[in-house]
Amino acid sequence: MNELNKAYKILGVEPGLYIRFRYKNEILEGVVMPPYVFTDPDIIVVKLKNGYNIGVLYSEIKDLEIIEMKRPEVGSISSEKIVQRKDLPKIIVVGTGGTIASKIEYETGAVKPSTSVDELIEAIPEVLDIAYIESETLFSILSENMRPEYWEIIAERIYNYMRDEAYKGVIVTHGTDTMSFTASAIAFAIQRKNIPIVFVGSQRSSDRPSSDAALNFIGAVITAVKAPFAESVIAMHHETSDTKIAVSRGVKTRKMHTSRRDTFRSINSRPLALVDPFKKDMELIEKEYIPRSKEEPILMNGFDKKVALIYSYPGIDPEILEFLIEKKYRGIVIAGTGFGHVPEYMIPVIRKAINNNIAVAVTSQTLYGRVNLSVYQTGREMLRAGVIPCEDMLPETAYVKLSWTLYRTDNIESVRKIMSTNYVYEMNPRLTEDLFLR
Amino acid sequence: MNELNKAYKILGVEPGLYIRFRYKNEILEGVVMPPYVFTDPDIIVVKLKNGYNIGVLYSEIKDLEIIEMKRPEVGSISSEKIVQRKDLPKIIVVGTGGTIASKIEYETGAVKPSTSVDELIEAIPEVLDIAYIESETLFSILSENMRPEYWEIIAERIYNYMRDEAYKGVIVTHGTDTMSFTASAIAFAIQRKNIPIVFVGSQRSSDRPSSDAALNFIGAVITAVKAPFAESVIAMHHETSDTKIAVSRGVKTRKMHTSRRDTFRSINSRPLALVDPFKKDMELIEKEYIPRSKEEPILMNGFDKKVALIYSYPGIDPEILEFLIEKKYRGIVIAGTGFGHVPEYMIPVIRKAINNNIAVAVTSQTLYGRVNLSVYQTGREMLRAGVIPCEDMLPETAYVKLSWTLYRTDNIESVRKIMSTNYVYEMNPRLTEDLFLR
Repeated sequence: MNELNKAYKILGVEPGLYIRFRYKNEILEGVVMPPYVFTDPDIIVVKLKNGYNIGVLYSEIKDLEIIEMKRPEVGSISSEKIVQRKDLPKIIVVGTGGTIASKIEYETGAVKPSTSVDELIEAIPEVLDIAYIESETLFSILSENMRPEYWEIIAERIYNYMRDEAYKGVIVTHGTDTMSFTASAIAFAIQRKNIPIVFVGSQRSSDRPSSDAALNFIGAVITAVKAPFAESVIAMHHETSDTKIAVSRGVKTRKMHTSRRDTFRSINSRPLALVDPFKKDMELIEKEYIPRSKEEPILMNGFDKKVALIYSYPGIDPEILEFLIEKKYRGIVIAGTGFGHVPEYMIPVIRKAINNNIAVAVTSQTLYGRVNLSVYQTGREMLRAGVIPCEDMLPETAYVKLSWTLYRTDNIESVRKIMSTNYVYEMNPRLTEDLFLR
Repeated sequence: MNELNKAYKILGVEPGLYIRFRYKNEILEGVVMPPYVFTDPDIIVVKLKNGYNIGVLYSEIKDLEIIEMKRPEVGSISSEKIVQRKDLPKIIVVGTGGTIASKIEYETGAVKPSTSVDELIEAIPEVLDIAYIESETLFSILSENMRPEYWEIIAERIYNYMRDEAYKGVIVTHGTDTMSFTASAIAFAIQRKNIPIVFVGSQRSSDRPSSDAALNFIGAVITAVKAPFAESVIAMHHETSDTKIAVSRGVKTRKMHTSRRDTFRSINSRPLALVDPFKKDMELIEKEYIPRSKEEPILMNGFDKKVALIYSYPGIDPEILEFLIEKKYRGIVIAGTGFGHVPEYMIPVIRKAINNNIAVAVTSQTLYGRVNLSVYQTGREMLRAGVIPCEDMLPETAYVKLSWTLYRTDNIESVRKIMSTNYVYEMNPRLTEDLFLR
């Protein structure tokens, strides 16, 4: 699954490796990057020491050496248009692509990720009054193409910055489609965070008058500098109009509208804070949070790739689960109906999966509310079969968490224990009336 | 898939057949019913002429004759506690089970469907001041066990009542888990409706003080009698407190909370009407609706069972679609990310599916908003591969509609045309600001 282009396979390289090679009689070295959107299958992308990404035809590569897992050093922003103030708190912006880093191709009307983080900062110079900003463009992909393998690269990269005390916050620019998946992945992969990790994106590309990119980015910079919490959060428009930026936990947030600027909603929770990007201040909404740790963060990286997310529906075929058993999947997250149910005819195959040491975690496709498998016969049978109920966790968050958990243990009882432990407020023990459809 | 119990298979009978047989030296006849929740595998359920459902041990059945697709006549409610007023509009209540027809088993705390429609009406006698009510308990299942095969039985049954001019409305009591799937199925299966079909359920069983059953049921009866629209709708609490009952289109409604009484929300739409169950009146909210037809309704029954609903996520395995191709599926509904995207590495297998004459319809897992596959490269590639974008249709509604469509045609261009035609307001061409999270 998740195949890289042919060129990567032929060369036997993958993103993250530091390589040296001869190319058209020149010796080049740099880090292998994931392919761009629709990169030619004969090309691999390499980030050179000077910071540029180039596409290299695999057939022209000679004397390839794989050196190590290492990357070129990040530099401060070099553009002459940017004047940085060294007295301000230093933050790092890691670019991964998405609409916030995109421009409209006016010939075709298509939106493509093509803007570096530096260009973004150049376009929003007011952020330079808030922070001293360093940047690295790590990927340049639309977030529908984000994959667990890339979560790992992002986590490792961010972790390295976090170990450097100079940085007061990390910003990750990211497409909105799967932003909450990646923000959840980072929430789990880096524990005991010392600084906030702020994901930011936009629903309209930066070169459009209606773009939400600038305000979201300003909100993210304020959050990175000022937030008392050190969590993996998402900073996006709180309302459709240009008022405040909602800062929400990645693990409790979901993209709920295809196009609105206030698409990211806190589910079974409220935003941690609201940021006023004009007054440049932050109002804390949630009093319970994980504060900035004074100790070093802990990297618990790695996600098992043999995990599936399945929504239940009338007529769902048990053979789909049979297939996952056959393919030696290690985990299945079910988004059941109502309290987390599946049709009773699915219970035998769920039992079989669990007997094959596959962890089956249960969430609800209603999204809001809490799983409860004790009320109805079907739920009780599911519990007897050995499923792991996931409280009020979002299906997407449970998918990320189960992938993370299965990377760490083979033991099904350990899986159950980890899934039931509230690491980063991915579960809310107190669902109050005001948390529905907010 | 969707196997019936062993007893059904050994006898070669299925729900809906009218059969006659000798049982313990008595000749019995009636309609084969689906098994109850956790019916013993050796037992089939038969609805006898007198209206009672009995479980029959298959090994005791002698001289089995399959007579025809026919059912015993429905009777008016016979309980002596009920006094019906013949001057009131006549409606029919078709029971299918669910929490509204359930009681708590006090030994175990479990909730089980065990109440007949008559018992429900006995418990809520005020409805007898609104309508003359006939009833039939068709199924007694929890709605997670509802299946496309049962949608067909319900559609046929309702259609027969609708052809009788005596009835002014149909009510279907139903579990809430999959109520919007069944309400959507009926919306498509019976066209040119002459009377409203009102689905009603409850989040708490009728014997609990906090039950929403009574108010929802009163709201449903008022709707069946008074509604100017003849659509397949859901009547459930509009707010958590006992205020009004929202009457919403089945095709635009989704269960959005595991336990709240106001769990059913109109997505990309507003309720058709709000009913005041105390004043017994109805306020029309939506001015555009399908009015009660003066002509006979048209039954377009039948749902293709080889259709799957797949939510996309980072790391989704193309092999899952390969499996569906191999298993000769005829349709796949994808709930993509954002505007309806999948990872680009999925596009080749989608192309392969379409080349295998499988219809691939695209919705968004954001639920709110409209699919748009023209903005980003990934979407454009999906369109080029031949996917069918489903506008603002819910993934669940698209699943039901695609099953319905594929039962009617093999031709992929006809499928595209039917999926793009707005039959019962399953698509809303005008999404306004107020339709988000309402």
